[in-house]
Amino acid sequence: MRIVVDAMGGDQAPAAAVEGAFLAARAFGRPIVLVGRAPDIEAELARHGASGLDIAVAHAADVIGMNELSPAAAVRRHPDNSISHGLRMVRHGEAEAFVTAGHTGATMAAAALNLGRIHGVSRAAVATPFPTLGGPCILLDVGANVEVKPVYLLQFGIMGAILAERVLGIADPRVGLLTIGEERGKGTPAVQAALPLLERSNLNFVGNIEGRDIPSGNVDVAVTDGFTGNIIVKFAEGTGALVREILREAATGDPISMLGGLLMRSAWRRASQRMDYRAYGGATLLGVRGVVVIGHGRSDAEAVKTAIGVAVRAVENRLVAAIEAGVASTAGLASPVDDAPEPAPALAAS
Amino acid sequence: MRIVVDAMGGDQAPAAAVEGAFLAARAFGRPIVLVGRAPDIEAELARHGASGLDIAVAHAADVIGMNELSPAAAVRRHPDNSISHGLRMVRHGEAEAFVTAGHTGATMAAAALNLGRIHGVSRAAVATPFPTLGGPCILLDVGANVEVKPVYLLQFGIMGAILAERVLGIADPRVGLLTIGEERGKGTPAVQAALPLLERSNLNFVGNIEGRDIPSGNVDVAVTDGFTGNIIVKFAEGTGALVREILREAATGDPISMLGGLLMRSAWRRASQRMDYRAYGGATLLGVRGVVVIGHGRSDAEAVKTAIGVAVRAVENRLVAAIEAGVASTAGLASPVDDAPEPAPALAAS
Repeated sequence: MRIVVDAMGGDQAPAAAVEGAFLAARAFGRPIVLVGRAPDIEAELARHGASGLDIAVAHAADVIGMNELSPAAAVRRHPDNSISHGLRMVRHGEAEAFVTAGHTGATMAAAALNLGRIHGVSRAAVATPFPTLGGPCILLDVGANVEVKPVYLLQFGIMGAILAERVLGIADPRVGLLTIGEERGKGTPAVQAALPLLERSNLNFVGNIEGRDIPSGNVDVAVTDGFTGNIIVKFAEGTGALVREILREAATGDPISMLGGLLMRSAWRRASQRMDYRAYGGATLLGVRGVVVIGHGRSDAEAVKTAIGVAVRAVENRLVAAIEAGVASTAGLASPVDDAPEPAPALAAS
Repeated sequence: MRIVVDAMGGDQAPAAAVEGAFLAARAFGRPIVLVGRAPDIEAELARHGASGLDIAVAHAADVIGMNELSPAAAVRRHPDNSISHGLRMVRHGEAEAFVTAGHTGATMAAAALNLGRIHGVSRAAVATPFPTLGGPCILLDVGANVEVKPVYLLQFGIMGAILAERVLGIADPRVGLLTIGEERGKGTPAVQAALPLLERSNLNFVGNIEGRDIPSGNVDVAVTDGFTGNIIVKFAEGTGALVREILREAATGDPISMLGGLLMRSAWRRASQRMDYRAYGGATLLGVRGVVVIGHGRSDAEAVKTAIGVAVRAVENRLVAAIEAGVASTAGLASPVDDAPEPAPALAAS
């Protein structure tokens, strides 16, 4: 098994990506290829004494910026960007997985162009773990598909459950359909039509769920469209920043609170870690022909290592083959019209 | 000005509602009518020494439960429930505003039946304030309208801005359209088509916003459909509970952290209050012919008093008339088809 790691992705690239690859090579004992501008990568590698570790370098001349507003166009304009280059290595069998902390939209667009979808999958989806009091809850889709058909939601449930089981090690994961009430008949027409499909699947499907069921940990997988999911992910990020700032102000407002804050420092750090979804290794692009893990843009070396660990488990546990089999097993549930994979994937969030 | 307060609404009814009305009558000096089961209300009033305050009682025999799954049906089946009774008093000019901590869906359904929409308004919407580091950010719609047309989103922007200005006292409120990217062309077809309508309005419209712009306080009003908005509100509630629990565990995990937690107790309380959207008095139902404030079901007496304060400001500052004028001023912006108010409001979240 070889893992390709995008050396140029993320706010702290290439330093964090290279150091993360170094930590992962040591921890997991798997060969790693760093893709990107070779001179930059080699300069970073030299700082870590990586000799003895199986870390190779693949040169890609171009870089897609983190703030690229038209990632799909940028990917087409610069075909030798590090993301596309790494994904082509997976496509050509030179590696089994691709890990990046780079641009999510660019990764989706490059995967559509260079990797393609798994047979039977209507739409690729981005799945992100959320912290709960128990283990993580996986939310998907969070970016790729603004408008969904019922069969997409069914397939998101299947792919999310396989991710939860194979990568997070959750046995028989509980899957819920995100909407605005637990009763039948709640939500958009697509959500209402997806409910019977999910009920007839062999998933451990708990039915409709509401927004609070994500953080409460009442399900392991929450299924939604990419519009709602993307807004929730970004709302959660912003809320996390707000909570940290309000608590920081509370802990520095007066001398007694400052002393209290100092005494709580280590408890505080543990609490932050529990709420930090980077602990779970970032998002996974599901439904494409290869393992693709998208770490958060703010990933440090430890987060990159964790993301590589997710990729290792996904390859070891045959995530892609399991998704192909899972989707095939439900091919008869939806109507033929909804069921047919469509030729042109809409990458609306790219 | 008279304010009708639902004595039977909320988890702590009638005690919290009656005490809240008592506090509000003393604080705001406005006549209040408590609507609900008269014997229950009078027993509570007797505990507060309300003589000298202008608090009347209107008897309504029925109560809609907080967990009613079919609120629209329940409202029709029990026409003399306290919510419908109170709203009819507003309709008949016996009061200027209605305040409840009861069932949101039941209040929307009862308002559609007993109050009706403002002339020119296509859909009523529920608006909820969210905490930010600055003042609150109003999100709407959070419950009534699962599927929206562009003109609904335009009108949500107008109604939200008027609420922000007249009730929260925010001058020239910044309005944003919630979607999955700041660039043009992001989001559902309805969102994409609403963008030029909002741009051509006379609102202080900042354009597309993302989920993180709500907690960051980058806008005063965030416009979305009732499906997305409802999921965000409930996700935020659940996340608040998760954060409180994780911090509670952090502050009780070991003796040093416990001491730190004790020293931080008052700072903690201030921080919680800043994050508690009940501080802003709950949600407002906009677009109906009367002021309707819906406090949170967990409202205590202080929260009920705050909700009554919102209603007082809304009446004083002529919220309903301002919405009618605001909507009329943009009647030419949308196509005639989209623009026509529709006869049958869809209360999908009821």
